[in-house]
This record gives sequence, structure tokens and C-alpha cells, in this order.
Amino acid sequence: MTEQQKTAARVGVLGARGRMGMEVCKAVDSAADLELVAAVDQGDDLDAVAQAGAEVVVDFTTPDAVMDNLRWCVEHGVHAVVGTTGFTGQRLAEVRGWLAGRPGVGVVIAPNFGIGAVLMMQFAARAARYFESVEIVEQHHPRKLDAPSGTATHTARLIAAARADAGLGPAPDATRDEVAGARGADIDGVRVHAVRATGLVAHQEVLFGTTGETLTIRHDSYDRVSFMPGVLLAVREVGRRPGLTVGLDALLD
Amino acid sequence: MTEQQKTAARVGVLGARGRMGMEVCKAVDSAADLELVAAVDQGDDLDAVAQAGAEVVVDFTTPDAVMDNLRWCVEHGVHAVVGTTGFTGQRLAEVRGWLAGRPGVGVVIAPNFGIGAVLMMQFAARAARYFESVEIVEQHHPRKLDAPSGTATHTARLIAAARADAGLGPAPDATRDEVAGARGADIDGVRVHAVRATGLVAHQEVLFGTTGETLTIRHDSYDRVSFMPGVLLAVREVGRRPGLTVGLDALLD
Amino acid sequence: MTEQQKTAARVGVLGARGRMGMEVCKAVDSAADLELVAAVDQGDDLDAVAQAGAEVVVDFTTPDAVMDNLRWCVEHGVHAVVGTTGFTGQRLAEVRGWLAGRPGVGVVIAPNFGIGAVLMMQFAARAARYFESVEIVEQHHPRKLDAPSGTATHTARLIAAARADAGLGPAPDATRDEVAGARGADIDGVRVHAVRATGLVAHQEVLFGTTGETLTIRHDSYDRVSFMPGVLLAVREVGRRPGLTVGLDALLD
Amino acid sequence: MTEQQKTAARVGVLGARGRMGMEVCKAVDSAADLELVAAVDQGDDLDAVAQAGAEVVVDFTTPDAVMDNLRWCVEHGVHAVVGTTGFTGQRLAEVRGWLAGRPGVGVVIAPNFGIGAVLMMQFAARAARYFESVEIVEQHHPRKLDAPSGTATHTARLIAAARADAGLGPAPDATRDEVAGARGADIDGVRVHAVRATGLVAHQEVLFGTTGETLTIRHDSYDRVSFMPGVLLAVREVGRRPGLTVGLDALLD
Repeated sequence: MTEQQKTAARVGVLGARGRMGMEVCKAVDSAADLELVAAVDQGDDLDAVAQAGAEVVVDFTTPDAVMDNLRWCVEHGVHAVVGTTGFTGQRLAEVRGWLAGRPGVGVVIAPNFGIGAVLMMQFAARAARYFESVEIVEQHHPRKLDAPSGTATHTARLIAAARADAGLGPAPDATRDEVAGARGADIDGVRVHAVRATGLVAHQEVLFGTTGETLTIRHDSYDRVSFMPGVLLAVREVGRRPGLTVGLDALLD
Repeated sequence: MTEQQKTAARVGVLGARGRMGMEVCKAVDSAADLELVAAVDQGDDLDAVAQAGAEVVVDFTTPDAVMDNLRWCVEHGVHAVVGTTGFTGQRLAEVRGWLAGRPGVGVVIAPNFGIGAVLMMQFAARAARYFESVEIVEQHHPRKLDAPSGTATHTARLIAAARADAGLGPAPDATRDEVAGARGADIDGVRVHAVRATGLVAHQEVLFGTTGETLTIRHDSYDRVSFMPGVLLAVREVGRRPGLTVGLDALLD
Repeated sequence: MTEQQKTAARVGVLGARGRMGMEVCKAVDSAADLELVAAVDQGDDLDAVAQAGAEVVVDFTTPDAVMDNLRWCVEHGVHAVVGTTGFTGQRLAEVRGWLAGRPGVGVVIAPNFGIGAVLMMQFAARAARYFESVEIVEQHHPRKLDAPSGTATHTARLIAAARADAGLGPAPDATRDEVAGARGADIDGVRVHAVRATGLVAHQEVLFGTTGETLTIRHDSYDRVSFMPGVLLAVREVGRRPGLTVGLDALLD
Repeated sequence: MTEQQKTAARVGVLGARGRMGMEVCKAVDSAADLELVAAVDQGDDLDAVAQAGAEVVVDFTTPDAVMDNLRWCVEHGVHAVVGTTGFTGQRLAEVRGWLAGRPGVGVVIAPNFGIGAVLMMQFAARAARYFESVEIVEQHHPRKLDAPSGTATHTARLIAAARADAGLGPAPDATRDEVAGARGADIDGVRVHAVRATGLVAHQEVLFGTTGETLTIRHDSYDRVSFMPGVLLAVREVGRRPGLTVGLDALLD
């Protein structure tokens, strides 16, 4: 999307035959400023990636494979964007250790590449201190096992922390006569409501209210391809950010 | 709003100095097809209404006063639109008795003159049989004492009845891991969520879902003047509906 | 979904290898009260459908094939639900002619099987007479060629007709200083706004306003599978409606 | 709302009998950490404000009166929060000149004290670079003379600048067949739609879209009292910000 780049960055994809890997290959292929030079999966030799001249690697593999892949990338001076899960504090420390010896190399590890969801949370945390009231309504398909969603719970905690920081007390609520559950779940003092209905995918609304006005931040996700713009953003940015970057947040400043 | 009427209907207002009565006077005054000919309140003589030639009377008085007012109207052949509360089955039967002797006279008694709310409930009841899932989210100012609102509870019951009638079972819901309250209140099997926030007035959303699509019916009420279009509708219709009509629903067919 | 049916209705699908036909096969297969007994496509013999004992046929074929299919159905006493396009008044008359000789057979032909969209239009037409103002905002993916959408245009015309019928004049609008296009397209006096954005699928909102309140009817369609509940509804209903039924509206009364 | 302040700040209101001034008096009066010590209007002597020991003055007067008021405040070492309109670059320079001689005094001048609207614009400007598509839908009462609103136009310009800055080209749009106006007004390349309906107050929605997801920021303003939280925020902050601060933005960092 940006037009500053003169020549296309050369990208390799690890886990290329997986569900997410295939989407990444398509997305890189469609981006004018990126070139897909290697698509490898389990059993393929990583040297193919080096021979193809990849400058950045995207890894959507498995917790078992990802550490070996990452060490290889750092050793070969290839930047890495990682969506694979399972990163403990210990694993992150290990990656930092490798990077210490290769100051020019960048690694971005993110549990969630959805730009919209990350911005929603950032904006919610920023708005929190200015509004007396706030509630969250998340809406998902009825096959979901947890209520509220992890994103809603995380958003509520960010908001609660920002309110505490600003010295805000509890939101006003005169409810005296409640049918159990009507006022939602209490997550650190923030009310969260979980709607489940056939036809829905993944949606969340954060409603802030103060005297005479409300501000609503809403995110609608329709498809796993919604992670691709975040992956591409990281691919474009990773070379300018040596060392380890955890979370897409850090790239959205 | 309609332009069929040749001459303006002559309207009297009882309870004209009350909060609602004053709004009715203003609304009648602003309507091109209606003429405010009498505005009386406690202590005033009802004969002033007859002398002014009122064809329709609007009553926003008190449960103590309304029955005497209504009998007077029926006896004098004046149609009546009543927003006063406190009508029991016994009172309604009494009014029907008076009307039996005056076949040309119409009386409309309604607990809620909000056209938008009434249509929302009608549409929700009608849509209910066609959707696998349905949930209600109502949003109000934080001074409200009950959760969910009476309108939300009533809507849920109408929907539950329509679903039962169509042979629909419970909406699908795989939730296994719930923070208490997240999934809302259970009103006859319909989940209802109550949001409270400063800045809000009175809002309700009914969300229907089926494979690949959702249908949402939303009502936003900002002000008590929102009852006026319903009152004026009843004033215009009451002359064409001899006998007793209970509820605005019956006028919205 | 309904549980009245004792034995599953036997269904055949014509055009079973097409995009929509495949979805219909899956949907029939998943419905407890329906049984998929025949799935045929171009080149297959229709007699297989008869031999399989199909009571209802669903036709998503082509304008070239559909008339022969329909005549065959009527002759064999098999009810038909048709989503194939290209039905002119002349074609409908022809179908009515065939049905005249077979009084027990039902045929449902519908250009749009989306229950949500059809209900949105019905509700909009019904609400129109009670609100001073109404505008439509439709939102679609940016590959769409026409603006506004056919559904939005059709909805606007239904609303305009209902307003005219009720004697309503133009909605109030004091705009004196407009950047060209800001107030949308004028469709029979109803303002329609078309939003285009990546990520959107197909959405429409009809906003009604009167003093102090608004009523909004919103439809969100995420997927072509959103037509399936409408197709199944027609499959279940067609046997109770002998003769020709045009449009899903007629089944949603 | 914050509880850090030990003693209530002493506040004087200029223009106290005006529409906004009266609201400010009420709002200051209701705030636990603020004390209303003087409420003056045209014809009253400003010295009453000094004698009452006001630390902060709020000025909602007229362009004719405001410069004299401000000079008086700066000379007397009283901080000022100003909502009065008519500030040209020349006037701002004059105020800066006065303040140069009184380094401890703060003045906040803002054309719009709506926190929600200001945050909506900030968030929109920040999100702009990450989304391929963006459109604005603003909704107002039908007595409004301009379309789109000033806020919508300003938001569109902020977004357009952020997109240009990020090297984004035009949003994708395949429209070939448009009823005039359907695609809205073009404000620096951003499409803006203006809805007008009875019952609405002042609302705006900014919709961002990228592959598979959308992010929506919505502001609803119901009442002129919606400016009060912004005024109070400025009253609380002005003492910590010596010199001239223009716009509420600067206080919302």
C-alpha cells in the first residue's frame, strides 16, 4: 500500500501449506511492494529460503517447529514475523539472547495480527479516563465456548487499569431490581455482555458515556483473512525495528 | 400529516397543566389538521370543553380523575384518547358498558404512546419464527432501577411465545465457560442484556440471526415528546373506531 | 426446525453441482425434517428424481433449463421451489397454465431467498406511514458496480409508495449549503446513501425518525448461505400452497 | 471525578446568565472538587470575581467582551477557560503577548468542548493509515443548514492528510452505475454521507475497512450539556498548563 519502497521486499513463508500460511502466501503475492520468493513447509529444507534471498520470513508453523526456525533466521540475518503460538516468557528470553548477538535483525512475535482489534483496545484504553461510564458488548457465533471472549476480557482489564489510574470510581448504576445476569459479567468493575447468535462472526462494541454524549468503538471481524493486513504491516516494519518486538501494538504507535 | 381532512378536528386537553398535558397542547397546536379548543385542568369545569365544541378529548390526568372524565366524554358524545394510567380489567369493563349505550363514540386507552417502541415489538414478534437465534440488548441511563427494562421483558415474552408457536426449540449456545452474568438474563428462554451508561436515554436492539445473516430492529427514544406522534395518531383515528380500543398496537395495523 | 412433521419430506435438487445447488444439498442434508433423495445436474435424467420418490424439487439451474424442469415437475405432481432467474411475465403465465391442470401442485418462484432482506423490506413498508423522516444507508464491498444497490432502490420505492398512500409530504430538510452528493441519491423522494469499503459484505439500514425517537431496521448478510433458510422455508411450505407463489414475501405473512 | 485535589478549586463564570454560562454554573456546582464563587454577566463588575478569590474563570460571553475579560484575568493572575468564539490568529497572538509577561498563568481557548467528538477525530486520524477504505456517515436533525456538518468535514480532512502521509492512494471503488449523490460528497477524497431526520440530534460514524474486518468509531451527542465534561476537564487542567493552549485536543493526550 505504501509507495515509498523502490524495490519489492523478498519474503519467505514457513508453514506455507497450513491454513494461515496459505493466506499469507496469497496476501504477499498480491502486495505490489512484496515478492514471495519461498514457500516451505514441514519436511522442506530451510536453506531454500536462504538461496531464494528472502529478507523477511513469516512463520505460521507449530510450537514444536518455531524455535528452530527462529534461530535459523537470526543466524542467517533474516528478519522474522511470527504468528505461531506458544511463546512463554522463557522462549521470549531465549529469542532475545539470540538477537543480542545479531544487532541488525528484527523479530516480531504477535498473538493477534488483527489491526482493527488492536486499535479498538488502544482507543478504548485511551478514552477510558474521560468517561464516567463504560460497558462492553461482544457478539459471536454460538459455537464459541467462552463468554465473554478473551478480547473482551482483555479490553475490560485495560479499561479498568486506565480508570484506576485516573482516579475514577465505579460507574454510576442505580439498579435495584435485576433479573440475574441482566447487567452482564463484572470484569474488574467493567460490565461485559456476551451475545451469541447464528450468523454472527466476531464483533465487539465498547460504549463510553458521559453527560449528554456517548462514544462507541466497534470492531467487526468477518474472516481469518482479517489478519493479513497486520501480517503485511509487520513484514514491512520488521526491518526497521531491530531486536524483539512483542505484540502488534508496538507497531501501531 | 395526512391531508385528507378538510377542516381541523377540534381537540380539548384534560390535565393541560401537567408535564404530558403541556406537551399535548403544544403538539395539537402545531398540527395543521388539529385545533386546540380547550385546555383544562383540576378545578376547571368540563363544560368548557363542551362549549368549545371539542370533538376529541385527550386525557393525561390521574387515576382518581380519569373515570369521571371518561364518563362525561361518553355521555357528551366526545371521543377520548387516554394516556392516564391505572386501568384495571374492571375499569375497562366499566368503560365498555358506558360505550354500549353510545355506539358512535370511540375511546382509545394506551399505556404507551411511543409508536417506535410499539412497532419494534410488533416486528420482533413477527420476525421471531424465522430466526434460529435472538437476543435483546437494551441501553438506558444509569438512574434506572430495574434491569432489564419493562419494554425489553415484554419484547422477550412476545418473542418467546412466537418461537413456541412455530415449534422452535432453544437457540444454539455452546457456552461452557461463562463468567457469571456474561450471557445476560434469561426471560422465557430469550437472553436479555441491560447496558447502563451516563449519556444514554432509552434504547433497545433486538438481534435476530440465522445462517449467514442477521436482522436488527433498534429503537432510540430521546425525549418524552416521543409520545406525541402516537397521541396525535390516536386523536386522528379515534373517531373512525367506535367502542373501546386498548393499546396503540390496534391502531398500527 | 419445526417439529410438526412426522416423516421427513423427500427433496430432489436440480443444478446440484452449481454454486447454489451445492449449498442447497448441504442445507437439506442438515435439516432433520428433510431428506435429500436426488441430486442431479445438466446431463442427468430427471426420471431419477421421480424414481427416488422426491416430493419437492429445488431448482437452481439456468434460464435455458428451468422451464423444461418445471413442466416436468408439474406433470409428475412434484412441488417445485425455484431460485433460477429470468422469469418474465410471459413465463409466469405459462407456469400458471400448467398448474391450472394440476390443482394439487405448488410452485414457489423467488428472485431473493434472503429472509432477513425480505422482512426488512416488509417492516420498512409498514413503518413508513408513521414517521415524518426516513433515509436508507446501504453498505457493500467496493467491487459492487451499482450504487445504490437494487435492494436499497426497491426498499426506497416501497417506502415512497407507503408514504404517498398515507398522504405524507416530503420529509423535512433545511439543507441550504450542500457539498454535492452529501445528501445522497433521491429515489422517489427517499434519500439513499451508498457506502463502499473493503471488508464489508452486504448491509442495509433503514432509519425512520419522528419527534424524539428513531426506529432503525438493519440487515447484515455475510454469505451466500444466508439464502438457505429461505429456501428451506419454501421447501417446507410449498406443499401447503397449491398453484403459483411468486416471491418469498408471500410465505412470510 | 478525580480525587487527588485536596481543596476545591475556586471558579468564577463570566456570561453566567447566557445559555452556556448557566450550564457551566450548574456543572461547576455539581462537581465535588470545584466551587462556584462568582457568577457574573454583562454589567457586573469583574472585581467581584477577584474579591471572591476565583482561581479559574470560565468565559462564555461574546466576541466583543472576551478580549477585555481575558486581559483582566491575565493581569490578575487568574487562569481562564474560554468557549467564546471569534478568535482570529491576531487575537491569539495578542493573548500570547499578555501571557508572556505572566509566566504562571494558563489560558485554554477551545472552539469545541465535546470530549467525545474530539476523541473521535483523534482516533480517526490515528486509524486512517492502517485501512484501505474509510467513509463517514453523519446524522443530524433536519433543521441543520449545512451538509455535511463542520465536524464531518474536519474529520475527513484529518483522515485525508493521514492517508497521504502514509502513502495510501484512493480507496477502492468499482462503482460504474451511480444514481447521482448515492456515493456521497467527496471531501479531499474521503466520501461523506449526511443523513437528516426528525428525532436525531447530532451523530457521526467513521467506518474503516480492510480485508475481512471493519473498525467503526461513533459519536452520539444528545444535548448541549455534552460540552460540560470538557469544560470541567479544562478547568481542572488549566492551572498545570501555563501559557496559551488552543483546542481541547491538547488536553487529551
